[in-house]
Amino acid sequence: MVSEIRNETGTQKLIGYVIEVGHIDGTARCWLDLDARHLNRHNVLHGGVATMLLDSASGAAGSLTVDDTGKAPFLTVSLTTQFVASGLPGRVTAVGRVTGGGRSLKYITAELHHEDGTLIATSTGVFKRVPQEKLT
Amino acid sequence: MVSEIRNETGTQKLIGYVIEVGHIDGTARCWLDLDARHLNRHNVLHGGVATMLLDSASGAAGSLTVDDTGKAPFLTVSLTTQFVASGLPGRVTAVGRVTGGGRSLKYITAELHHEDGTLIATSTGVFKRVPQEKLT
Amino acid sequence: MVSEIRNETGTQKLIGYVIEVGHIDGTARCWLDLDARHLNRHNVLHGGVATMLLDSASGAAGSLTVDDTGKAPFLTVSLTTQFVASGLPGRVTAVGRVTGGGRSLKYITAELHHEDGTLIATSTGVFKRVPQEKLT
Amino acid sequence: MVSEIRNETGTQKLIGYVIEVGHIDGTARCWLDLDARHLNRHNVLHGGVATMLLDSASGAAGSLTVDDTGKAPFLTVSLTTQFVASGLPGRVTAVGRVTGGGRSLKYITAELHHEDGTLIATSTGVFKRVPQEKLT
Repeated sequence: MVSEIRNETGTQKLIGYVIEVGHIDGTARCWLDLDARHLNRHNVLHGGVATMLLDSASGAAGSLTVDDTGKAPFLTVSLTTQFVASGLPGRVTAVGRVTGGGRSLKYITAELHHEDGTLIATSTGVFKRVPQEKLT
Repeated sequence: MVSEIRNETGTQKLIGYVIEVGHIDGTARCWLDLDARHLNRHNVLHGGVATMLLDSASGAAGSLTVDDTGKAPFLTVSLTTQFVASGLPGRVTAVGRVTGGGRSLKYITAELHHEDGTLIATSTGVFKRVPQEKLT
Repeated sequence: MVSEIRNETGTQKLIGYVIEVGHIDGTARCWLDLDARHLNRHNVLHGGVATMLLDSASGAAGSLTVDDTGKAPFLTVSLTTQFVASGLPGRVTAVGRVTGGGRSLKYITAELHHEDGTLIATSTGVFKRVPQEKLT
Repeated sequence: MVSEIRNETGTQKLIGYVIEVGHIDGTARCWLDLDARHLNRHNVLHGGVATMLLDSASGAAGSLTVDDTGKAPFLTVSLTTQFVASGLPGRVTAVGRVTGGGRSLKYITAELHHEDGTLIATSTGVFKRVPQEKLT
Protein backbone atom coordinates (compact mmCIF):
# COMPACT_ATOMS: atom_id res chain seq x y z
CA MET A 1 0.00 0.00 0.00
CA VAL A 2 1.44 3.36 -1.01
CA SER A 3 2.12 5.76 1.85
CA GLU A 4 3.31 9.36 1.65
CA ILE A 5 6.00 11.14 3.64
CA ARG A 6 5.38 14.90 3.81
CA ASN A 7 6.94 17.80 5.71
CA GLU A 8 9.49 15.58 7.43
CA THR A 9 12.37 18.07 7.26
CA GLY A 10 12.81 21.81 7.01
CA THR A 11 13.89 21.50 3.41
CA GLN A 12 11.01 19.24 2.47
CA LYS A 13 8.56 21.80 3.89
CA LEU A 14 10.34 24.60 2.05
CA ILE A 15 10.33 22.88 -1.35
CA GLY A 16 7.08 20.95 -0.99
CA TYR A 17 8.03 17.59 -2.45
CA VAL A 18 6.31 14.36 -1.40
CA ILE A 19 8.01 10.98 -0.92
CA GLU A 20 6.05 7.82 -1.70
CA VAL A 21 6.90 4.31 -0.55
CA GLY A 22 4.96 1.06 -0.78
CA HIS A 23 4.84 0.77 -4.56
CA ILE A 24 4.50 -2.82 -5.70
CA ASP A 25 7.69 -2.60 -7.80
CA GLY A 26 9.82 -1.84 -4.75
CA THR A 27 10.83 1.63 -5.93
CA ALA A 28 10.67 4.79 -3.85
CA ARG A 29 9.29 7.92 -5.49
CA CYS A 30 9.51 11.63 -4.90
CA TRP A 31 7.20 14.04 -6.69
CA LEU A 32 6.69 17.78 -6.86
CA ASP A 33 4.15 20.03 -8.56
CA LEU A 34 6.35 22.69 -10.12
CA ASP A 35 5.54 26.36 -9.68
CA ALA A 36 7.54 29.58 -10.03
CA ARG A 37 9.53 28.89 -6.85
CA HIS A 38 11.14 25.83 -8.48
CA LEU A 39 12.24 27.46 -11.72
CA ASN A 40 15.55 28.95 -12.86
CA ARG A 41 16.10 32.02 -14.98
CA HIS A 42 15.22 30.06 -18.12
CA ASN A 43 11.80 29.32 -16.54
CA VAL A 44 12.45 25.60 -16.37
CA LEU A 45 13.05 23.33 -13.39
CA HIS A 46 16.11 24.48 -11.41
CA GLY A 47 18.88 21.90 -11.53
CA GLY A 48 19.30 22.06 -7.77
CA VAL A 49 15.65 21.19 -7.23
CA ALA A 50 15.86 18.36 -9.76
CA THR A 51 18.86 16.99 -7.88
CA MET A 52 17.00 17.24 -4.59
CA LEU A 53 14.16 15.09 -5.95
CA LEU A 54 16.55 12.48 -7.37
CA ASP A 55 18.52 12.42 -4.12
CA SER A 56 15.38 12.07 -1.99
CA ALA A 57 13.96 9.24 -4.10
CA SER A 58 17.34 7.50 -3.96
CA GLY A 59 17.69 7.85 -0.20
CA ALA A 60 14.17 6.51 0.32
CA ALA A 61 14.96 3.57 -1.99
CA GLY A 62 17.94 2.83 0.25
CA SER A 63 15.72 2.99 3.32
CA LEU A 64 13.39 0.41 1.82
CA THR A 65 16.23 -2.12 1.98
CA VAL A 66 16.03 -1.80 5.79
CA ASP A 67 12.29 -1.66 6.43
CA ASP A 68 9.13 -0.59 4.64
CA THR A 69 8.73 2.81 6.32
CA GLY A 70 11.18 4.47 3.92
CA LYS A 71 12.58 6.41 6.88
CA ALA A 72 15.66 4.40 7.91
CA PRO A 73 18.35 7.05 7.54
CA PHE A 74 20.80 6.97 4.64
CA LEU A 75 23.45 9.55 3.85
CA THR A 76 24.46 10.52 0.33
CA VAL A 77 28.16 9.80 -0.19
CA SER A 78 28.32 10.98 -3.80
CA LEU A 79 25.77 11.77 -6.48
CA THR A 80 26.09 12.32 -10.22
CA THR A 81 23.22 13.96 -12.07
CA GLN A 82 22.74 14.17 -15.83
CA PHE A 83 20.43 16.96 -16.93
CA VAL A 84 18.85 15.38 -19.99
CA ALA A 85 16.00 17.78 -20.83
CA SER A 86 14.25 20.88 -19.53
CA GLY A 87 11.52 20.44 -16.92
CA LEU A 88 8.44 22.49 -17.74
CA PRO A 89 5.73 23.34 -15.17
CA GLY A 90 3.57 20.35 -14.16
CA ARG A 91 4.18 17.35 -11.90
CA VAL A 92 7.62 15.73 -11.98
CA THR A 93 8.38 12.39 -10.33
CA ALA A 94 11.71 10.83 -9.41
CA VAL A 95 11.86 7.04 -9.12
CA GLY A 96 14.77 5.46 -7.20
CA ARG A 97 16.07 1.89 -7.51
CA VAL A 98 18.86 0.08 -5.70
CA THR A 99 21.23 -1.54 -8.20
CA GLY A 100 23.66 -3.17 -5.80
CA GLY A 101 25.83 -2.85 -2.76
CA GLY A 102 26.48 -4.49 0.55
CA ARG A 103 25.22 -4.03 4.10
CA SER A 104 26.48 -0.48 4.53
CA LEU A 105 26.94 1.04 1.05
CA LYS A 106 24.25 1.01 -1.63
CA TYR A 107 24.43 1.95 -5.30
CA ILE A 108 21.21 3.69 -6.24
CA THR A 109 19.98 5.14 -9.54
CA ALA A 110 17.04 7.44 -10.11
CA GLU A 111 15.16 8.90 -13.05
CA LEU A 112 13.12 12.10 -13.06
CA HIS A 113 10.21 12.21 -15.50
CA HIS A 114 7.69 14.91 -16.27
CA GLU A 115 4.04 13.83 -16.19
CA ASP A 116 4.03 14.15 -20.00
CA GLY A 117 6.60 11.32 -20.13
CA THR A 118 9.74 13.39 -20.83
CA LEU A 119 12.91 12.12 -19.13
CA ILE A 120 14.28 15.25 -17.43
CA ALA A 121 17.28 13.94 -15.49
CA THR A 122 18.97 10.79 -14.24
CA SER A 123 21.29 10.16 -11.33
CA THR A 124 23.58 7.51 -9.94
CA GLY A 125 24.91 7.67 -6.43
CA VAL A 126 26.55 5.96 -3.51
CA PHE A 127 24.57 5.99 -0.27
CA LYS A 128 25.54 4.88 3.21
CA ARG A 129 23.34 3.55 5.96
CA VAL A 130 23.63 5.67 9.08
CA PRO A 131 24.89 3.34 11.81
CA GLN A 132 22.35 2.89 14.61
CA GLU A 133 24.84 3.93 17.28
CA LYS A 134 25.03 7.36 15.68
CA LEU A 135 21.29 7.86 16.05
CA THR A 136 20.97 7.74 19.80
CA MET B 1 34.69 45.11 -7.16
CA VAL B 2 32.48 42.42 -5.65
CA SER B 3 28.82 42.60 -6.65
CA GLU B 4 25.94 40.47 -5.39
CA ILE B 5 23.15 38.76 -7.32
CA ARG B 6 20.06 38.23 -5.17
CA ASN B 7 16.48 37.07 -5.81
CA GLU B 8 17.11 36.53 -9.50
CA THR B 9 15.00 33.37 -9.83
CA GLY B 10 12.10 31.78 -8.04
CA THR B 11 14.37 29.18 -6.52
CA GLN B 12 16.94 31.72 -5.39
CA LYS B 13 14.20 33.66 -3.58
CA LEU B 14 12.89 30.47 -2.03
CA ILE B 15 16.26 29.26 -0.73
CA GLY B 16 17.83 32.65 -0.05
CA TYR B 17 21.35 32.14 -1.38
CA VAL B 18 23.46 35.03 -2.67
CA ILE B 19 25.82 34.91 -5.67
CA GLU B 20 28.96 37.03 -5.63
CA VAL B 21 31.08 37.97 -8.63
CA GLY B 22 33.98 40.38 -9.00
CA HIS B 23 36.43 38.64 -6.65
CA ILE B 24 40.01 39.41 -7.53
CA ASP B 25 40.85 35.69 -7.94
CA GLY B 26 38.29 35.30 -10.74
CA THR B 27 36.11 32.85 -8.84
CA ALA B 28 32.35 33.09 -8.48
CA ARG B 29 30.86 32.45 -5.05
CA CYS B 30 27.51 31.47 -3.67
CA TRP B 31 26.74 31.72 0.03
CA LEU B 32 23.84 30.95 2.32
CA ASP B 33 23.17 31.47 6.01
CA LEU B 34 21.78 28.11 7.07
CA ASP B 35 18.61 27.89 9.12
CA ALA B 36 16.07 25.14 9.82
CA ARG B 37 14.66 25.35 6.27
CA HIS B 38 17.96 24.13 4.83
CA LEU B 39 18.47 21.11 7.08
CA ASN B 40 17.71 17.43 6.64
CA ARG B 41 16.41 15.00 9.24
CA HIS B 42 19.88 14.72 10.76
CA ASN B 43 19.80 18.51 11.35
CA VAL B 44 22.67 19.14 8.98
CA LEU B 45 22.72 20.84 5.58
CA HIS B 46 20.42 19.04 3.13
CA GLY B 47 22.42 17.48 0.29
CA GLY B 48 20.08 18.98 -2.27
CA VAL B 49 20.71 22.48 -0.93
CA ALA B 50 24.46 21.88 -0.87
CA THR B 51 24.28 20.80 -4.51
CA MET B 52 22.28 23.90 -5.40
CA LEU B 53 25.00 26.15 -3.97
CA LEU B 54 27.79 24.27 -5.77
CA ASP B 55 25.82 24.33 -9.02
CA SER B 56 25.07 28.05 -8.73
CA ALA B 57 28.68 28.99 -7.99
CA SER B 58 29.79 26.83 -10.92
CA GLY B 59 27.29 28.35 -13.33
CA ALA B 60 28.31 31.86 -12.31
CA ALA B 61 31.98 30.93 -12.78
CA GLY B 62 31.09 29.85 -16.30
CA SER B 63 29.31 33.17 -16.89
CA LEU B 64 32.43 35.06 -15.88
CA THR B 65 34.19 33.58 -18.91
CA VAL B 66 31.73 35.57 -21.07
CA ASP B 67 31.51 38.89 -19.23
CA ASP B 68 31.87 40.22 -15.71
CA THR B 69 28.16 40.39 -14.83
CA GLY B 70 28.05 36.70 -13.89
CA LYS B 71 24.66 36.48 -15.60
CA ALA B 72 25.50 35.11 -19.06
CA PRO B 73 23.39 31.96 -19.06
CA PHE B 74 24.99 28.52 -18.68
CA LEU B 75 23.17 25.21 -18.41
CA THR B 76 24.37 22.33 -16.26
CA VAL B 77 25.00 19.29 -18.45
CA SER B 78 26.14 16.98 -15.64
CA LEU B 79 27.23 17.47 -12.06
CA THR B 80 28.93 15.14 -9.58
CA THR B 81 28.88 16.05 -5.90
CA GLN B 82 30.94 14.46 -3.13
CA PHE B 83 29.48 14.97 0.33
CA VAL B 84 32.64 15.16 2.40
CA ALA B 85 31.37 16.34 5.80
CA SER B 86 28.21 17.50 7.56
CA GLY B 87 27.22 21.15 7.24
CA LEU B 88 26.26 22.63 10.60
CA PRO B 89 24.25 25.86 10.97
CA GLY B 90 26.22 29.01 10.08
CA ARG B 91 27.30 30.55 6.78
CA VAL B 92 28.42 28.22 4.01
CA THR B 93 30.12 29.43 0.82
CA ALA B 94 30.64 27.66 -2.50
CA VAL B 95 33.52 28.80 -4.69
CA GLY B 96 33.49 27.87 -8.39
CA ARG B 97 36.47 27.73 -10.75
CA VAL B 98 36.70 26.92 -14.44
CA THR B 99 39.31 24.20 -15.05
CA GLY B 100 39.07 23.93 -18.82
CA GLY B 101 36.89 23.62 -21.85
CA GLY B 102 36.25 25.27 -25.17
CA ARG B 103 33.88 27.94 -26.43
CA SER B 104 30.68 26.08 -25.67
CA LEU B 105 31.46 23.49 -22.96
CA LYS B 106 33.23 24.33 -19.71
CA TYR B 107 34.60 22.03 -16.99
CA ILE B 108 33.95 23.66 -13.64
CA THR B 109 34.76 22.56 -10.10
CA ALA B 110 33.43 23.98 -6.86
CA GLU B 111 34.08 23.59 -3.15
CA LEU B 112 31.65 24.30 -0.34
CA HIS B 113 33.17 25.39 2.96
CA HIS B 114 31.59 26.24 6.29
CA GLU B 115 32.66 29.55 7.81
CA ASP B 116 34.61 27.52 10.41
CA GLY B 117 36.81 26.22 7.57
CA THR B 118 35.33 22.73 7.22
CA LEU B 119 35.18 21.37 3.66
CA ILE B 120 31.56 20.20 3.34
CA ALA B 121 31.28 19.14 -0.29
CA THR B 122 33.00 19.34 -3.66
CA SER B 123 31.65 19.12 -7.18
CA THR B 124 32.84 18.74 -10.73
CA GLY B 125 30.59 19.41 -13.66
CA VAL B 126 30.15 20.05 -17.34
CA PHE B 127 28.38 23.28 -18.23
CA LYS B 128 27.18 24.58 -21.57
CA ARG B 129 26.81 28.13 -22.70
CA VAL B 130 23.25 28.86 -23.80
CA PRO B 131 23.44 29.90 -27.43
CA GLN B 132 22.35 33.50 -27.96
CA GLU B 133 19.77 32.55 -30.60
CA LYS B 134 17.90 30.56 -27.96
CA LEU B 135 17.54 33.60 -25.74
CA THR B 136 15.42 35.78 -27.97
CA MET C 1 23.09 -8.29 -38.34
CA VAL C 2 25.72 -8.16 -35.64
CA SER C 3 29.17 -7.04 -36.77
CA GLU C 4 32.37 -6.92 -34.75
CA ILE C 5 35.01 -4.21 -34.51
CA ARG C 6 38.42 -5.61 -33.51
CA ASN C 7 41.95 -4.19 -33.29
CA GLU C 8 40.86 -0.73 -34.39
CA THR C 9 43.17 1.21 -32.07
CA GLY C 10 46.42 0.62 -30.26
CA THR C 11 44.62 0.32 -26.96
CA GLN C 12 42.02 -2.09 -28.31
CA LYS C 13 44.80 -4.35 -29.58
CA LEU C 14 46.60 -4.12 -26.26
CA ILE C 15 43.57 -4.99 -24.13
CA GLY C 16 41.82 -7.31 -26.58
CA TYR C 17 38.20 -6.20 -26.23
CA VAL C 18 35.69 -6.57 -29.06
CA ILE C 19 32.96 -4.08 -29.98
CA GLU C 20 29.68 -5.35 -31.37
CA VAL C 21 27.09 -3.32 -33.26
CA GLY C 22 23.97 -4.37 -35.15
CA HIS C 23 22.03 -5.81 -32.22
CA ILE C 24 18.31 -5.69 -32.77
CA ASP C 25 17.75 -3.68 -29.57
CA GLY C 26 19.90 -0.81 -30.84
CA THR C 27 22.54 -1.18 -28.14
CA ALA C 28 26.27 -1.29 -28.72
CA ARG C 29 28.26 -3.90 -26.82
CA CYS C 30 31.86 -4.36 -25.81
CA TRP C 31 33.11 -7.67 -24.45
CA LEU C 32 36.36 -9.10 -23.15
CA ASP C 33 37.49 -12.54 -22.03
CA LEU C 34 39.31 -11.80 -18.79
CA ASP C 35 42.74 -13.22 -18.12
CA ALA C 36 45.59 -12.34 -15.76
CA ARG C 37 46.47 -9.20 -17.74
CA HIS C 38 43.11 -7.64 -16.84
CA LEU C 39 43.19 -8.26 -13.10
CA ASN C 40 44.20 -6.09 -10.16
CA ARG C 41 46.06 -7.14 -7.03
CA HIS C 42 42.85 -8.63 -5.60
CA ASN C 43 42.71 -10.91 -8.68
CA VAL C 44 39.49 -9.37 -9.91
CA LEU C 45 38.81 -7.16 -12.94
CA HIS C 46 40.89 -3.97 -12.78
CA GLY C 47 38.67 -0.91 -12.42
CA GLY C 48 40.48 0.84 -15.22
CA VAL C 49 39.75 -2.03 -17.62
CA ALA C 50 36.09 -2.10 -16.53
CA THR C 51 35.87 1.61 -17.25
CA MET C 52 37.44 1.12 -20.66
CA LEU C 53 34.76 -1.42 -21.62
CA LEU C 54 31.92 0.81 -20.38
CA ASP C 55 33.40 3.82 -22.17
CA SER C 56 33.87 1.89 -25.43
CA ALA C 57 30.33 0.49 -25.41
CA SER C 58 29.01 3.99 -24.69
CA GLY C 59 30.99 5.62 -27.46
CA ALA C 60 29.83 2.99 -29.95
CA ALA C 61 26.23 3.53 -28.82
CA GLY C 62 26.70 7.22 -29.60
CA SER C 63 28.09 6.33 -33.03
CA LEU C 64 24.99 4.30 -33.79
CA THR C 65 22.95 7.51 -33.62
CA VAL C 66 24.90 8.69 -36.69
CA ASP C 67 25.08 5.54 -38.82
CA ASP C 68 25.12 1.78 -38.34
CA THR C 69 28.88 1.25 -38.62
CA GLY C 70 29.44 2.16 -34.95
CA LYS C 71 32.56 4.04 -36.02
CA ALA C 72 31.37 7.67 -36.27
CA PRO C 73 33.73 9.32 -33.79
CA PHE C 74 32.50 10.45 -30.37
CA LEU C 75 34.61 11.91 -27.59
CA THR C 76 33.98 11.25 -23.91
CA VAL C 77 33.31 14.54 -22.13
CA SER C 78 32.77 13.06 -18.67
CA LEU C 79 32.15 9.59 -17.31
CA THR C 80 31.03 8.33 -13.91
CA THR C 81 31.53 4.68 -13.05
CA GLN C 82 30.03 2.80 -10.11
CA PHE C 83 31.94 -0.37 -9.18
CA VAL C 84 29.08 -2.55 -7.98
CA ALA C 85 30.70 -5.98 -7.66
CA SER C 86 33.95 -7.80 -8.31
CA GLY C 87 34.56 -9.16 -11.81
CA LEU C 88 35.85 -12.72 -11.74
CA PRO C 89 37.61 -14.39 -14.68
CA GLY C 90 35.27 -15.22 -17.59
CA ARG C 91 33.62 -13.12 -20.29
CA VAL C 92 32.32 -9.70 -19.34
CA THR C 93 30.10 -7.58 -21.60
CA ALA C 94 29.28 -3.88 -21.47
CA VAL C 95 26.03 -2.74 -23.06
CA GLY C 96 25.62 0.96 -23.91
CA ARG C 97 22.37 2.86 -24.44
CA VAL C 98 21.69 6.47 -25.39
CA THR C 99 19.26 8.03 -22.89
CA GLY C 100 18.97 11.49 -24.40
CA GLY C 101 20.72 14.51 -25.80
CA GLY C 102 20.74 16.73 -28.85
CA ARG C 103 22.66 16.81 -32.09
CA SER C 104 26.09 17.27 -30.56
CA LEU C 105 25.94 16.01 -26.95
CA LYS C 106 24.57 12.60 -25.97
CA TYR C 107 23.83 11.16 -22.53
CA ILE C 108 24.79 7.50 -22.54
CA THR C 109 24.59 4.84 -19.84
CA ALA C 110 26.23 1.43 -19.81
CA GLU C 111 26.14 -1.70 -17.70
CA LEU C 112 28.88 -4.30 -17.40
CA HIS C 113 27.75 -7.85 -16.64
CA HIS C 114 29.69 -11.04 -16.11
CA GLU C 115 28.58 -14.01 -18.18
CA ASP C 116 27.16 -15.54 -14.96
CA GLY C 117 24.72 -12.59 -14.78
CA THR C 118 26.44 -10.54 -12.06
CA LEU C 119 26.21 -6.76 -12.51
CA ILE C 120 29.84 -5.64 -12.13
CA ALA C 121 29.70 -1.91 -12.89
CA THR C 122 27.51 0.81 -14.34
CA SER C 123 28.36 4.13 -15.94
CA THR C 124 26.72 7.34 -17.04
CA GLY C 125 28.47 9.80 -19.27
CA VAL C 126 28.31 12.77 -21.56
CA PHE C 127 29.66 12.21 -25.07
CA LYS C 128 30.25 14.65 -27.88
CA ARG C 129 30.16 14.03 -31.59
CA VAL C 130 33.45 14.95 -33.21
CA PRO C 131 32.63 17.67 -35.76
CA GLN C 132 33.34 16.56 -39.32
CA GLU C 133 35.62 19.54 -40.00
CA LYS C 134 37.98 18.26 -37.32
CA LEU C 135 38.39 14.93 -39.06
CA THR C 136 40.00 16.06 -42.27
CA MET D 1 62.24 9.39 -0.34
CA VAL D 2 60.38 8.60 -3.55
CA SER D 3 59.88 4.92 -4.27
CA GLU D 4 58.37 3.30 -7.35
CA ILE D 5 55.85 0.49 -7.66
CA ARG D 6 56.17 -1.35 -10.99
CA ASN D 7 54.65 -4.51 -12.45
CA GLU D 8 52.58 -5.22 -9.37
CA THR D 9 49.50 -6.48 -11.20
CA GLY D 10 48.70 -8.03 -14.55
CA THR D 11 47.15 -4.80 -15.74
CA GLN D 12 50.05 -2.67 -14.60
CA LYS D 13 52.45 -4.91 -16.54
CA LEU D 14 50.20 -4.76 -19.60
CA ILE D 15 49.87 -0.97 -19.63
CA GLY D 16 53.28 -0.12 -18.21
CA TYR D 17 52.43 2.67 -15.78
CA VAL D 18 54.57 3.39 -12.72
CA ILE D 19 53.25 4.41 -9.28
CA GLU D 20 55.34 6.74 -7.13
CA VAL D 21 54.97 7.29 -3.41
CA GLY D 22 57.13 9.16 -0.92
CA HIS D 23 56.73 12.64 -2.39
CA ILE D 24 57.22 15.36 0.19
CA ASP D 25 53.77 16.83 -0.51
CA GLY D 26 52.03 13.59 0.51
CA THR D 27 50.56 12.94 -2.93
CA ALA D 28 50.73 9.65 -4.79
CA ARG D 29 51.60 9.76 -8.48
CA CYS D 30 51.14 7.49 -11.45
CA TRP D 31 52.96 8.14 -14.71
CA LEU D 32 53.12 6.58 -18.14
CA ASP D 33 55.18 7.25 -21.24
CA LEU D 34 52.58 7.19 -23.99
CA ASP D 35 53.12 5.18 -27.13
CA ALA D 36 50.83 3.81 -29.85
CA ARG D 37 49.39 1.17 -27.52
CA HIS D 38 47.83 3.88 -25.34
CA LEU D 39 46.15 5.89 -28.08
CA ASN D 40 42.60 5.93 -29.44
CA ARG D 41 41.50 6.31 -33.03
CA HIS D 42 42.10 10.06 -32.85
CA ASN D 43 45.74 9.29 -31.96
CA VAL D 44 45.44 10.83 -28.52
CA LEU D 45 45.46 9.21 -25.10
CA HIS D 46 42.64 6.66 -24.78
CA GLY D 47 40.10 7.76 -22.17
CA GLY D 48 40.20 4.34 -20.55
CA VAL D 49 43.95 4.56 -20.06
CA ALA D 50 43.63 8.10 -18.67
CA THR D 51 41.05 6.83 -16.20
CA MET D 52 43.33 3.96 -15.18
CA LEU D 53 46.12 6.40 -14.31
CA LEU D 54 43.80 8.67 -12.32
CA ASP D 55 42.32 5.69 -10.53
CA SER D 56 45.73 4.23 -9.69
CA ALA D 57 47.09 7.51 -8.35
CA SER D 58 43.93 7.92 -6.28
CA GLY D 59 44.08 4.42 -4.84
CA ALA D 60 47.73 4.88 -3.90
CA ALA D 61 46.88 8.22 -2.25
CA GLY D 62 44.33 6.35 -0.17
CA SER D 63 46.93 3.75 0.76
CA LEU D 64 49.24 6.48 2.02
CA THR D 65 46.68 7.28 4.72
CA VAL D 66 47.38 3.78 6.13
CA ASP D 67 51.15 3.50 5.78
CA ASP D 68 53.92 4.82 3.55
CA THR D 69 54.26 1.79 1.29
CA GLY D 70 51.35 2.92 -0.91
CA LYS D 71 50.23 -0.71 -1.08
CA ALA D 72 47.52 -0.92 1.59
CA PRO D 73 44.58 -2.08 -0.53
CA PHE D 74 41.75 0.32 -1.42
CA LEU D 75 38.81 -0.41 -3.68
CA THR D 76 37.24 2.15 -5.99
CA VAL D 77 33.59 2.62 -5.06
CA SER D 78 32.82 5.24 -7.70
CA LEU D 79 34.89 7.45 -9.97
CA THR D 80 34.00 10.46 -12.11
CA THR D 81 36.42 11.57 -14.80
CA GLN D 82 36.35 14.83 -16.76
CA PHE D 83 38.24 14.69 -20.04
CA VAL D 84 39.50 18.25 -20.25
CA ALA D 85 41.98 18.11 -23.15
CA SER D 86 43.62 15.66 -25.53
CA GLY D 87 46.69 13.79 -24.34
CA LEU D 88 49.46 13.83 -26.95
CA PRO D 89 52.41 11.41 -26.94
CA GLY D 90 54.92 12.08 -24.15
CA ARG D 91 54.93 11.45 -20.41
CA VAL D 92 51.67 11.98 -18.54
CA THR D 93 51.43 12.00 -14.74
CA ALA D 94 48.42 11.63 -12.47
CA VAL D 95 48.64 13.13 -8.98
CA GLY D 96 46.15 11.94 -6.32
CA ARG D 97 45.16 13.76 -3.13
CA VAL D 98 42.81 12.76 -0.32
CA THR D 99 40.27 15.53 0.30
CA GLY D 100 38.35 13.99 3.18
CA GLY D 101 36.60 10.96 4.57
CA GLY D 102 36.58 8.76 7.63
CA ARG D 103 38.28 5.54 8.61
CA SER D 104 36.78 3.39 5.88
CA LEU D 105 35.71 5.72 3.04
CA LYS D 106 37.99 8.32 1.48
CA TYR D 107 37.22 11.10 -1.01
CA ILE D 108 40.12 11.38 -3.41
CA THR D 109 40.73 13.71 -6.36
CA ALA D 110 43.36 13.39 -9.06
CA GLU D 111 44.68 15.46 -11.93
CA LEU D 112 46.42 14.16 -15.03
CA HIS D 113 48.93 16.50 -16.66
CA HIS D 114 51.06 16.13 -19.74
CA GLU D 115 54.77 16.87 -19.28
CA ASP D 116 54.20 20.07 -21.28
CA GLY D 117 51.90 21.30 -18.49
CA THR D 118 48.53 20.67 -20.17
CA LEU D 119 45.75 19.52 -17.84
CA ILE D 120 44.36 16.44 -19.62
CA ALA D 121 41.79 15.07 -17.18
CA THR D 122 40.58 15.31 -13.60
CA SER D 123 38.77 12.83 -11.40
CA THR D 124 36.92 12.67 -8.11
CA GLY D 125 36.10 9.39 -6.46
CA VAL D 126 35.04 7.48 -3.42
CA PHE D 127 37.44 4.78 -2.26
CA LYS D 128 37.06 2.15 0.44
CA ARG D 129 39.72 0.55 2.54
CA VAL D 130 39.69 -3.22 2.13
CA PRO D 131 39.04 -4.65 5.60
CA GLN D 132 41.97 -6.66 6.94
CA GLU D 133 39.84 -9.73 7.58
CA LYS D 134 39.16 -9.95 3.84
CA LEU D 135 42.87 -10.14 3.06
CA THR D 136 43.75 -13.41 4.75
